[in-house]
Amino acid sequence: MTDRRATRADSRAETIMRSTLELAREAGYAKLSVEAVAARAGVGKHTVYRRWPSKGVLFLDSLLSLHEPALEYADTGDITADLRRQIHAAVDLLGAPPWGPLYRALIGEAQHDPAVAAGLNERFIRPQAEKTVARIKAAQRRGQLAADLDLDLMMAILSGPLYFTLLITQEPLTHDYVDRVLHALFAGLAPRP
Amino acid sequence: MTDRRATRADSRAETIMRSTLELAREAGYAKLSVEAVAARAGVGKHTVYRRWPSKGVLFLDSLLSLHEPALEYADTGDITADLRRQIHAAVDLLGAPPWGPLYRALIGEAQHDPAVAAGLNERFIRPQAEKTVARIKAAQRRGQLAADLDLDLMMAILSGPLYFTLLITQEPLTHDYVDRVLHALFAGLAPRP
Repeated sequence: MTDRRATRADSRAETIMRSTLELAREAGYAKLSVEAVAARAGVGKHTVYRRWPSKGVLFLDSLLSLHEPALEYADTGDITADLRRQIHAAVDLLGAPPWGPLYRALIGEAQHDPAVAAGLNERFIRPQAEKTVARIKAAQRRGQLAADLDLDLMMAILSGPLYFTLLITQEPLTHDYVDRVLHALFAGLAPRP
Repeated sequence: MTDRRATRADSRAETIMRSTLELAREAGYAKLSVEAVAARAGVGKHTVYRRWPSKGVLFLDSLLSLHEPALEYADTGDITADLRRQIHAAVDLLGAPPWGPLYRALIGEAQHDPAVAAGLNERFIRPQAEKTVARIKAAQRRGQLAADLDLDLMMAILSGPLYFTLLITQEPLTHDYVDRVLHALFAGLAPRP
């Protein structure tokens, strides 16, 4: 492909992804269709299917194209404050409109479409988990966390309660809820000595 | 309605729910349709819609009609053993076929259909949470758990990591994973004194 043709294809892909998000916000993911996306983007349905095998994968790409650098961990030297700040940012982004309902819909689709589940993990969840473990390890070295943490579990333990609220009880994800979860996780369930 | 008519309606409802589960197991939830259920059950589509407003709500009812009494808490006096046994039973039931993929599909649908989300919470999640809190309180009274636990969070903290694995990473839910999560939750993240 010449540079100019590549640029044109990229810009058409951007138009398609933007149209996908617009339609998903307007009518909800359940009502989204590749036909409607193609019409909004002014392309043929086959142009969409040539790049994206399913509505779910198109939606995944579209949502991740918005990915903002808001979910980096700071390292101020205080692990409690840094975890708190990062998770507040995550719930502000993923738990509230416009991302919130779309992110929930994406995870819903991941229960039906294995390609969506795989893409979500490879491109979003795993990189986040690696950042979490890196920040946890730095804090452990400074004695701010238990020395024997099961690092493989950190992402599930820290974010599991938030996903439970996002996906199951579907109650609002507030900063206060995050703070209470962190407090409980730091303290542990065992009786205090 | 006379008793005989009520019995006939109940038995027809059972046939419809059984057909729903059969078809969901055979072809997966994404391909399930009210038309196919009606055909399998030998009733008209309108008979199905008269009782269930959407495919999602029909599926919820069908799945909960299977609900087994396997998720009760024992009280042997040992909270660690009882939590462990109960959560092992839960992941055996909810994390593996035949329930596992159907339960994941149900939660997927709850992201798109508010009536499914509400029914799931009222009829399954909340009763489970109440049992969990009752068992936790009994253990607290005996000094087997920290006295200041945030009881509202118990369900999210204990089961959140399991839902994260079921819905997000979609790795197998093993007894070993449950044991590691419980160990980490009891110990807490804070440095040991």
